[in-house]
Amino acid sequence: MAISIYRGNIISSRSWDELDVHERGYVVVEDGIISGVHDELPEEYEKYDICDYGDRLIIPAFSDLHMHAPQYVERGVGMDCLLFEWLNTYTFPQESRFADRNYAGVIYPQVIRDFIRHGSLQVNLFSTIHYEACDLLFRMLIDSGLYAYAGKINMDMNSPEYYVEDTEESIRETERFIKEHIDLCNRVKPIIIPRFAPTCSKKLLKGLGELCRKYDVGIHTHLVESKAEAAWARELFPMCTSDGEIYEMTGLLQGSGPKIFAHVIFPTETEDRIFRQYSAVSVHCPDATTNITAGIMPVTSLHEKGYDIAIGSDVGGGHFFGIYRQISRALQLSKMKEFYEEDYKRAVFANAFYMATAAGGRVFGNIGKIEKGYKFNALVIDNMQDEGFRIPVLEALERFCYIGDDRNIRERFIDGVRIDPDEVYRKLIEK
Amino acid sequence: MAISIYRGNIISSRSWDELDVHERGYVVVEDGIISGVHDELPEEYEKYDICDYGDRLIIPAFSDLHMHAPQYVERGVGMDCLLFEWLNTYTFPQESRFADRNYAGVIYPQVIRDFIRHGSLQVNLFSTIHYEACDLLFRMLIDSGLYAYAGKINMDMNSPEYYVEDTEESIRETERFIKEHIDLCNRVKPIIIPRFAPTCSKKLLKGLGELCRKYDVGIHTHLVESKAEAAWARELFPMCTSDGEIYEMTGLLQGSGPKIFAHVIFPTETEDRIFRQYSAVSVHCPDATTNITAGIMPVTSLHEKGYDIAIGSDVGGGHFFGIYRQISRALQLSKMKEFYEEDYKRAVFANAFYMATAAGGRVFGNIGKIEKGYKFNALVIDNMQDEGFRIPVLEALERFCYIGDDRNIRERFIDGVRIDPDEVYRKLIEK
Repeated sequence: MAISIYRGNIISSRSWDELDVHERGYVVVEDGIISGVHDELPEEYEKYDICDYGDRLIIPAFSDLHMHAPQYVERGVGMDCLLFEWLNTYTFPQESRFADRNYAGVIYPQVIRDFIRHGSLQVNLFSTIHYEACDLLFRMLIDSGLYAYAGKINMDMNSPEYYVEDTEESIRETERFIKEHIDLCNRVKPIIIPRFAPTCSKKLLKGLGELCRKYDVGIHTHLVESKAEAAWARELFPMCTSDGEIYEMTGLLQGSGPKIFAHVIFPTETEDRIFRQYSAVSVHCPDATTNITAGIMPVTSLHEKGYDIAIGSDVGGGHFFGIYRQISRALQLSKMKEFYEEDYKRAVFANAFYMATAAGGRVFGNIGKIEKGYKFNALVIDNMQDEGFRIPVLEALERFCYIGDDRNIRERFIDGVRIDPDEVYRKLIEK
Repeated sequence: MAISIYRGNIISSRSWDELDVHERGYVVVEDGIISGVHDELPEEYEKYDICDYGDRLIIPAFSDLHMHAPQYVERGVGMDCLLFEWLNTYTFPQESRFADRNYAGVIYPQVIRDFIRHGSLQVNLFSTIHYEACDLLFRMLIDSGLYAYAGKINMDMNSPEYYVEDTEESIRETERFIKEHIDLCNRVKPIIIPRFAPTCSKKLLKGLGELCRKYDVGIHTHLVESKAEAAWARELFPMCTSDGEIYEMTGLLQGSGPKIFAHVIFPTETEDRIFRQYSAVSVHCPDATTNITAGIMPVTSLHEKGYDIAIGSDVGGGHFFGIYRQISRALQLSKMKEFYEEDYKRAVFANAFYMATAAGGRVFGNIGKIEKGYKFNALVIDNMQDEGFRIPVLEALERFCYIGDDRNIRERFIDGVRIDPDEVYRKLIEK
C-alpha cells in the first residue's frame, strides 16, 4: 500500500457554514484515499517521510460544475452584449467551428490546461453538437487525469441554420456517444446535455429522456437562467408550469446519474420540489449571470429550502477559469442581492467555499473535503502574507479567493497523484 | 531633444464613448511628451530607431483615484464584515500601527511596488493621521517616480480613542505638512484629506477649509458612500441638506487643487450642483462599494449630468490593485444596476476605459491619453490571444481588463521613462 503524508495548514468544509482548520496538521493518504487528518502525527506513521509544505494551505481541489469548453476563446470578449446578441454574434459562430475535429484538437488542450492551472480538478462540461469533437474532448479528459462529466450537446430548433441538428440524428448520435464512452473510464463519464429548453423540441427531449433511463445517465443543462429564457421556455412548452417541469415530463430526470442545472435564478415551487425529489444540483455562476444581466441566484434561500448548490465558471459567459474567484464573486453578488432585496440574507465565506469544494466534489464521489475516506484531490496554495504583518490562515484562504491566482497554486493532486498543467498540455497536443 | 519612437497597437480614449485605435501605429515621444501618433511614420523620424512592441497594445497608464495606503495588508480579508464592523475590527487597529514610522517603512514600499506592478502610475491616496508616516509615504512617492496626491488624514471625533486627533493639533500638523511638502516635487502634491464628515468636527473642517484657500490645495474624501453614512453625516451637520454641502460650507472647495470625492452613490441635487460648480471629480470604486454592500454608483446618469468620473481601487475596502479589473467590475455592476433599476442604462466598455485612463489622468495634468501633447505615461500590454483563433485588438484590450493581470503588463512608462516595480521597491527599502 502506497502511503504519503503531507503537512501544512489544512482547511476543509465541515458543513455549509463551518470550516475545519488543522494548523500545521498532517494528512495521511493511502492509495490515493485520505486515511486520516491529524493535528499530531500518530506513532504508526513516524517511519514515513513527510512532504512538508510549511505554512502553505492544503485545501480540497475546486469543482467547476458548469463550463462551455468550446467557448474558451470567448473569455472576456463581447461583454457589452446581452445574452441573445452574444449567442448570435460570438457563441454560435464559434461553436460551429468544432465541426472540424482539428480545431477542437487545438482548443480543447488549452481548456484542460487552464482547468488544471486554476485548480479545478473536477469539471462538468458543455461541448458542441459535433460527435467527433466531443469524442476528442472526452478522450482528452481521460488522458488528462481530471474527473469529468462530458458528452455531446443537443439542439434542434431556434438555432442558426449553420448550427442545428436533425432531431432523429441528434438522438441517434447521443445514444452512440453514450454507448461508446460509458465504460471507457471511471473518472470521466458521459452525461446528456440538451442546450436549454428553447432550442430543443419536445420530441428531442423525450428521445433523450429515454436514453437517460436506458443508460442510467445524468443530465446537465441551463435552468431559469434569465426571466426572458424562462418565459420563452414556458411559451414553447405550454403544458409545463415551469422550466424544470419540462425536463421532468420528458423523462430526463430518470437516470441515476447527476442532474445538474446551471443558474436557477428564478426557481418556482415546482423547481423546489424537483430539486428535492431528484437530488438535483444547482450551479451558481456569479460572473456569468452578471455578465448577461440575468440576475443573482438566491443562494442562501435555496440552501434553506434544501437545494444542493455548487459553483461554475460558465466560461465563456463567465470570463475567468478560477473557481476560487467565483467564491469571492458569489459573496459580492450576495451582498448586492441583500442591498436590493430587503428580505435576502447574504452568504458568508464558509458557504461559498463549501459550494466550490464539498458540494461540487460530491457530484464526482467522495471528493471535495480533506477528510478520512475522501479521495486526495487537493491543492497546495500559498499562505498569502505581506511583509511586516501576519494574518491568520483562514484569512489567508479568504485572501487567496479574492486576490490570488494560478501563481499561488503550488501543487495539484488527483487521487493522490501530482498533476501539472503544462505537462498535461504537452501530452495532449503531442498525441 | 530626446526622441523615442514606439510601435504597437495603440489604443486610447477619444471621448466618453469612443476609442481611438492605431493598429501597428507609431507614437513619437519627445522629452517625455507625445509629439504625435501616426499610422505611417513621418519621413522626418525615419532616421530614429523604433522600439517595436509587435502586436502588443500601447495604452495610457491607469489612474487610481482613491486608495488607502495603510490598508494594504487588509486586501481580501474580513470581507464578511459590513462597513462599520470592518472599520473597527480591521481598519482602525491597522491604521493606528502607522504611529510607528518604521512600520510605514515596511508597508508603503509594498504599496508603491504594487501600484507600479498593476500599471497605476497616477495615484491619489488616503494615509493615516500620523505626520511622520505620511511624510515618509510622500517622500517615497517622490522617489518612486509615480504621479500622486497624498497628505495626512484628519479625524477628531467618532473614532476609537487610540486613533483620533485633537482638533487644533490636527489643523496645525496639516498646515505643517502642506508647507513642508508643497514645493518638493512637481509630480507629487499635498492634498487635504478629512476622513469623512462623521469623523470630523465642524471646527476641524473649517480649519482645513482655511488651509485649502491659503495654500490653494485640493481635497480628497468620501462622499455619500452609503445610505447609513450619508444619514449620519446629515444628523451631525443639521445645517447642511446633503453630505456635499458640508465640505462646501466649511470652505474645503476653495482651493484650486482637485476636489476628489470617492463613491458618490446617492448624490442629491446639491451634489449635482457642487460637482459642476467646482469641477469636482467623483471616483467609482466598484469592488469596494460591493464589498461593503453600499450600492452602485449611477455612472451613466452622473455622466449625463456632467460629472467627471474616475476609478479607484479603494484598497483595502476594495481588494485588488488593478484598475484594469475595476473596468470590468464597473461594467458588471452597471449591468446589475440595470437589472434592478428599470430606468438605469448600463455603461459600456469604452465608458469604463475612459474613466480609468482619460478621466483619472486629467487630474494630474495632460495625462491619460496617447495623444499629441500628453505626457507619455503609458503601458505596453500583451495582445492576449489563444492558440488557434484570433480576436481583434479592441477585444484583446477588453480581455485584458476581464482576465489579464500584472503578468500581462510588459512595460510601464512615466514621462517617457521606463519604470520597473521591483527596482523601485528595492530602492525604497534600501534607502
